[in-house]
Amino acid sequence: MDNLNIIKIGGQVIDEVAKLSEFLINFTRFPGNKILVHGGGKIADDLLIKLGIKPKVYNGRRVTDEDTLRVVQMVYAGLINKSIVSQMQKYKCAALGMSGADANSILSKKRETADVDFGFVGDIISVNANIIHQFITIGLTPVFCALTHDGKGQILNTNADTIAAELGIALSKIYNISLIYCIQKAGVLQNINDEQSVIPGLTFESYSKIKEKGLITAGMIPKIDNAFNALHRGVKQVWITSYNSLGKWMESASSMGTKITLT
Amino acid sequence: MDNLNIIKIGGQVIDEVAKLSEFLINFTRFPGNKILVHGGGKIADDLLIKLGIKPKVYNGRRVTDEDTLRVVQMVYAGLINKSIVSQMQKYKCAALGMSGADANSILSKKRETADVDFGFVGDIISVNANIIHQFITIGLTPVFCALTHDGKGQILNTNADTIAAELGIALSKIYNISLIYCIQKAGVLQNINDEQSVIPGLTFESYSKIKEKGLITAGMIPKIDNAFNALHRGVKQVWITSYNSLGKWMESASSMGTKITLT
Repeated sequence: MDNLNIIKIGGQVIDEVAKLSEFLINFTRFPGNKILVHGGGKIADDLLIKLGIKPKVYNGRRVTDEDTLRVVQMVYAGLINKSIVSQMQKYKCAALGMSGADANSILSKKRETADVDFGFVGDIISVNANIIHQFITIGLTPVFCALTHDGKGQILNTNADTIAAELGIALSKIYNISLIYCIQKAGVLQNINDEQSVIPGLTFESYSKIKEKGLITAGMIPKIDNAFNALHRGVKQVWITSYNSLGKWMESASSMGTKITLT
Repeated sequence: MDNLNIIKIGGQVIDEVAKLSEFLINFTRFPGNKILVHGGGKIADDLLIKLGIKPKVYNGRRVTDEDTLRVVQMVYAGLINKSIVSQMQKYKCAALGMSGADANSILSKKRETADVDFGFVGDIISVNANIIHQFITIGLTPVFCALTHDGKGQILNTNADTIAAELGIALSKIYNISLIYCIQKAGVLQNINDEQSVIPGLTFESYSKIKEKGLITAGMIPKIDNAFNALHRGVKQVWITSYNSLGKWMESASSMGTKITLT
């Protein structure tokens, strides 16, 4: 089996032109098969405010009404995705920007919950691993934004961490998958105020222990849960690391943030 | 050689949800290999105004400053392209939404003119016919928005009629190309006020004659010039027809607007 690295970015690295550019230089140099998944940063929020639409969030997840979806679709698939793709071409990486609707690559279902209506938010049903494999085979590097579709003509806003995990799970039948979540911090920290306190390795057992002690920040929990879900379902390795460290990765796999394994 | 139909839409059919939906039903049923190219309609203008950016036009072409490009990129590649792609999936057509930056498919150069600065507007240098052919071969239907890139990280706004023509020219080495420009009118009209006055056929000679007499409207001239350019450079047939008539095309190729041929 060939290796395939699925790298997810979000937040600050997307909002700041210079940081994104530096990241993309490192990403395009990163050897082997790869996929990039990007979130939306705060650019969508800024545009929502400019258009007089109040960003709505419930339990850390965006509530996506019709107006919000239009903005999110424009920012994710238009502004950010095509800016990333054109920059990658500059570094001679044959990027193919995609939403989950393109090539019917990621099918999802509108979330139905009893307590709150999240609007046009999708939970992933299936990933078309075969078509993504074909893109990689002909030398392309897929770049996914955080949008999927329901197969009935509706685009749905979908969490980028989950997209990365589900791509990894589906493609684990064809490749040895490494899933790399790039964040601002250097990895999962023992002490949120100490950048030096990176936990080099987490197993399900050690994670459960420190979670019980309340040592994992709320924002990190769904990310790590995603990681274990992916490992249980076929992904070989998951890393949580800084987007700055991708360049160093090629020199040495040490000091690369937090490696997550089942045992 | 296999046949390939390149169909271009713009204007009203993009602005109106019901018309676009009807067009896409017919387009997805259209037999054989096909590519869709879409313009931006007036949705980009509406968003520019909402954001306090005045749309600028010179000689019928948009002047694209940095703020305008951001909006155009969002509307063309994000809002319109992904809405079209997700609807095509509903009709079981494996659409792949693209800008010219994706898969390095259309390379262009920022327009340099002495008299007026068009801003981030691109004139096409080359089309990557090979990668588009590969997409078609694996069963995908490319859907291009009116954006290209300069290979140096810059997205450029590019006329959709020209994109359709240049795709046709480049792909004419691999396919028998029919280029179909869909407009609101039923074809090229002898009398702009009489929808029944469609000219069924135009050769370069007959076109030159009626153009001299001032019978061709200003907006139609670049479209027909594009058509002859494409025919001179390898495209087999060009049609200018109504987007309404695409459904009828399958039943009979008569009453299908204006067919343009060299002689």
